[in-house]
Amino acid sequence: MAMVNMVCIGDELLDGRTREGNGFWLGGWLRRAGHRLGSVTLVADDRANIVAALRRATSGAALVVVSGGLGPTLDDITRDAIADLLGDELRADAGSEERLRAKFGRFGRPMPDNNLRQTLFPASSRVVPNPVGTADCFVATFEGIPLLVLPGVPYEFETVAKLELPELLPAAAPRRFITRRTAGIGESDLARRMEAVPCPDGLHVTWCASHPYVEVEISAAATDDEALTAYASAALAPLAPWLLPVDAEGAALSAAAAVLAALRQKGLRIATAESCTGGGIAKELTEIAGSSDGFACGVVTYSNRSKSELLGVPAALIKAEGAVSSAVASAMAEGARARLGAEVAVAVTGVAGPGGGSEAKPVGTVYVAVSVAASGWVMKLSLGRSRSRRQIRETSTVAALRLVERLLAGRPEELEHFGGVASLRCYRSGTFR
Amino acid sequence: MAMVNMVCIGDELLDGRTREGNGFWLGGWLRRAGHRLGSVTLVADDRANIVAALRRATSGAALVVVSGGLGPTLDDITRDAIADLLGDELRADAGSEERLRAKFGRFGRPMPDNNLRQTLFPASSRVVPNPVGTADCFVATFEGIPLLVLPGVPYEFETVAKLELPELLPAAAPRRFITRRTAGIGESDLARRMEAVPCPDGLHVTWCASHPYVEVEISAAATDDEALTAYASAALAPLAPWLLPVDAEGAALSAAAAVLAALRQKGLRIATAESCTGGGIAKELTEIAGSSDGFACGVVTYSNRSKSELLGVPAALIKAEGAVSSAVASAMAEGARARLGAEVAVAVTGVAGPGGGSEAKPVGTVYVAVSVAASGWVMKLSLGRSRSRRQIRETSTVAALRLVERLLAGRPEELEHFGGVASLRCYRSGTFR
Repeated sequence: MAMVNMVCIGDELLDGRTREGNGFWLGGWLRRAGHRLGSVTLVADDRANIVAALRRATSGAALVVVSGGLGPTLDDITRDAIADLLGDELRADAGSEERLRAKFGRFGRPMPDNNLRQTLFPASSRVVPNPVGTADCFVATFEGIPLLVLPGVPYEFETVAKLELPELLPAAAPRRFITRRTAGIGESDLARRMEAVPCPDGLHVTWCASHPYVEVEISAAATDDEALTAYASAALAPLAPWLLPVDAEGAALSAAAAVLAALRQKGLRIATAESCTGGGIAKELTEIAGSSDGFACGVVTYSNRSKSELLGVPAALIKAEGAVSSAVASAMAEGARARLGAEVAVAVTGVAGPGGGSEAKPVGTVYVAVSVAASGWVMKLSLGRSRSRRQIRETSTVAALRLVERLLAGRPEELEHFGGVASLRCYRSGTFR
Repeated sequence: MAMVNMVCIGDELLDGRTREGNGFWLGGWLRRAGHRLGSVTLVADDRANIVAALRRATSGAALVVVSGGLGPTLDDITRDAIADLLGDELRADAGSEERLRAKFGRFGRPMPDNNLRQTLFPASSRVVPNPVGTADCFVATFEGIPLLVLPGVPYEFETVAKLELPELLPAAAPRRFITRRTAGIGESDLARRMEAVPCPDGLHVTWCASHPYVEVEISAAATDDEALTAYASAALAPLAPWLLPVDAEGAALSAAAAVLAALRQKGLRIATAESCTGGGIAKELTEIAGSSDGFACGVVTYSNRSKSELLGVPAALIKAEGAVSSAVASAMAEGARARLGAEVAVAVTGVAGPGGGSEAKPVGTVYVAVSVAASGWVMKLSLGRSRSRRQIRETSTVAALRLVERLLAGRPEELEHFGGVASLRCYRSGTFR
């Protein structure tokens, strides 16, 4: 396991303009590769400070990764600072200039002269072509420690890092990872439930909250493959109500992708009828390329009138039960399935806040109904006053998608364990067509 | 202007589990307060390394802000490391314990014993109550430099930082800021257009890309108020086609908030008819609390059948022109306005990719139509192959919202300048009711 330090360069990282994220990405990549990120330092565009930070970063590190400051403007001084550190001159690289002119040629634009700064590199460094941007990269060596110098633009940083890191790091013992995604359970609750099964020596478990999911990662040396598989199957079993399905390659799906996979498998299509989520469910489903084979259409029936006109919810029912009610949610789902040309329908109505709550139906009260040919299910969520409008909408969206998928899998009752679900019941039974 | 350094503590910041963001927030806060963040260092939960990082951070700083490692578990060692740095003992604080027990009492939960660790502080430090979490904070002093030690949880960090920073920093000359938001123009293009008006000495302009917007901030010493106002009005004038409106307090609105404000002002309501944006426009509009007075309802007509059934778009028109066409977009908008009970309608149909493109209609071809009583406008966006499905959907959403707002303001033709707009025309004129 090698230790890597990182230096991120740029005034914009320190004055609230740009949120540094390359360190986050690099930390995850190194962990999965069996290495570790020791420290990350963000410094401003000041040559002496950059040199001092670089010098410190080399201490004890197998590699230093540098991000940012390779642009064409005068405040892009990373290459100058590294030349200072090495006691090198900057030298123009003909290959880099050729590539840069070709890139501008492809954009059909003349190359401004100041872009030539991007073809200067410390004399002793090795130039690394950047296949996805104008700033070529380089590898310098200071007191035997390699420095991999990359652009700050995340896509460029990640692309070149993935190409170069394996060569610059010592081979690590190969590890195997099992990653699963959960929804509707908190990180500490998840950890506690997994602790019921003792984790064998040599295996490593981490949890990572990545809203609206919590991800579980179990890893082991590749030689411990059998132990890993056995432990994962035992430790994940108690998490069944919260686990999202995986695809054919074993990668965990999002809640929306899991719904689309289930619809495809059964040859069904879904319609959405949303009030408080305001189109969020439809947006999640259609974010996935090729969703048109599982997604028929959706309506955002924000007003009572539109609930009646588009979905056929009787105005009298809305008046008697209130728009936020189990009866209206299920009527919306039935109406959507009957009218919108789909075999499956999901409906949501609730109080997202901050206004609109009452004592009987406080902010965070949300009803979700799912209708399939065989049955209809409705659940009430109580998402509480401490959550924001955005959080209430996001949690409702994920809970609704989970109810659809679990119902298609024949296990709707598992949603009872989803965080915030106050009640769950079947409001109609029938025969699945 | 005082320089502040920051140290962020936690293994999870370095292994890809948690994306550090308190530095980003602090950098912006300090800049607006007339100070600056000099550096940010992320270190793992290692006592000696933390002490070394803290010592370095005090060099040249007026204040060091420390984030993270104040939790109740054994790997939360920030208080221990700071005691090491100061040569202090840790001492229990009775007031802190009382507050902590009261917090658990309010949650109705017994307090686990390990939470008592959170009431230990370096003997010479000043305890700072945390009104929004269990971890009380503290201010220590090392060689005359104050260290403000805060929890890593962003909401807690920001809440306590806002209370304590003003006391710990020297008074800065008050500055005035004018902040505007733009959409549909790149950062460098924006900067170039503003450079046409020379920026007077003492004024400062920054641009910040905050997808899908680019924000412009102009600032000056409060004493230069007149120069600030004069420069801002001259320099922002050429940006008119891209500027978003401001609210009564001068704060820049989002594209969706600007649409709702315009609808409210005219007493109108909007209906949305979305294909490739899949509910994204409805979701943006309904994200805003109280949107029901301006948002009537929406449909996500992903399939051709739903375009005909819900919006009355003739199947023959779809067959002749293709679902992605100016004719279908405008028919969707007219159908939505006629059928969905709204005075304004917006419709989007396009190829979000990555599949589904053709030579005539490549990925990124999107048509947006807006219908009001007086007229109907349609624009074609060419968002290009280099953008992802997500980016194409987001840009289409913002462009559509901008066309609605500019049409309500009587200036639809300004959308011609919106990045990616290939054509724009009025397809129908009439009298505004």
